[in-house]
Amino acid sequence: MHQNIKIVLVNTSHPGNIGGAARAMKNMGLADLVLVEPKQFPDPEADSRASGATDILENATVVATLEEAVADCQLVIGTSARERHIPVTLVDPRQAAELVFSDTLKTAFVFGREDRGLTNEELQRCHYHVHIPSVEEFSSLNLGAAVQVIAYELRMQALSLKGGPIVESKWDVPAATAEQLDYMLEHLEKVLGDIEFLDPKAPRQVMTRFRRLYQRSQLDQQEVGMLRGMLTAIEKQTAK
Amino acid sequence: MHQNIKIVLVNTSHPGNIGGAARAMKNMGLADLVLVEPKQFPDPEADSRASGATDILENATVVATLEEAVADCQLVIGTSARERHIPVTLVDPRQAAELVFSDTLKTAFVFGREDRGLTNEELQRCHYHVHIPSVEEFSSLNLGAAVQVIAYELRMQALSLKGGPIVESKWDVPAATAEQLDYMLEHLEKVLGDIEFLDPKAPRQVMTRFRRLYQRSQLDQQEVGMLRGMLTAIEKQTAK
Repeated sequence: MHQNIKIVLVNTSHPGNIGGAARAMKNMGLADLVLVEPKQFPDPEADSRASGATDILENATVVATLEEAVADCQLVIGTSARERHIPVTLVDPRQAAELVFSDTLKTAFVFGREDRGLTNEELQRCHYHVHIPSVEEFSSLNLGAAVQVIAYELRMQALSLKGGPIVESKWDVPAATAEQLDYMLEHLEKVLGDIEFLDPKAPRQVMTRFRRLYQRSQLDQQEVGMLRGMLTAIEKQTAK
Repeated sequence: MHQNIKIVLVNTSHPGNIGGAARAMKNMGLADLVLVEPKQFPDPEADSRASGATDILENATVVATLEEAVADCQLVIGTSARERHIPVTLVDPRQAAELVFSDTLKTAFVFGREDRGLTNEELQRCHYHVHIPSVEEFSSLNLGAAVQVIAYELRMQALSLKGGPIVESKWDVPAATAEQLDYMLEHLEKVLGDIEFLDPKAPRQVMTRFRRLYQRSQLDQQEVGMLRGMLTAIEKQTAK
């Protein structure tokens, strides 16, 4: 049921939390765990806290970067411990689960470090940010507990849809993957350099805005093709 | 807000789980913890897993029996890891939270032992049984994770009654007007003509796709400015 959903843990410090996350996932019917540069894994403490969900740990993929972890995903949702001052598309866990089941997109839920969550750059790779509504004065959940809440909402949503109408993709063209979006943005950055649009003193700022815009739009593959076609046409003109 | 709700843990074996429960409670705005004959408490492992919620541990009440723990409660809800063959009023965590907030009853949520939950006799002391909908083949949640799910649903319910959405997306730049979007799209169409990107046989088709894309993105005014800046930079280059 959840074969389209992966849980991504970024730079986890405590192997026990990886085990706790694995257990929470298995309890709720999730199976696909991806670890981005865990500090310590595999580890007996992870096995112990997994408490029988060792198959999830054994099948976990370890990768070096978040880009790699979400490369094949069409919808990337990052957890944010607090409301940040970057304007984003912020949802609560229930809304996030509804989003996931409103379509059949390959989806990643991304969880950050125990002490400081996801970096701004990592959050910018996400289409949505999900905030678990903790109290302000004590807002940071244990990592395994955060995975538990999200996995629980996903299961509640899945169960509520069972027997209901078959959910169909409302879009006729497949959504772009994170990798396709990355390539398009690299192409865009090159062309913006060519046409001297980027501020040489702060080239990243404009690219951050462009990423935010196109990430939010959840581009489909035809749209990515169209934008890249436009970029190629600009290159041809400026090469003349 | 939650002064009427207590969390009762019965015969907990691992002090770490008491700490995990305390942390989950504090994250979600709960404060009243009652321990029925814990195997080991207080304990450094409880403090460590509480991760700052030590006030909840310090104020926890330790009692000898479940009867004592729930003596002053008007509504007692017991967690059940599996559906049992006793006739009971079984609810899911969301329904349980709705029950709690449908009245102002002094309420206890009772969580059983790590290995075998609550006894039949203990379950019979409960007005309702709440079942966290785990998968059948791997149904037993970590105790702290179970407390987290219930506490989360209580908070979601409390926040939804406060009125208004639980999380709000804050955007710091005004959204573009329809007119601003139209001007930007006209500008885009001109530039796409200049760089010979539009199909002369069907120029409108590409523009329809661009409109759909940028309409869907709900551009803000800064983004419209950025896109128009890029278009102007392309014009300068192609005019050379």
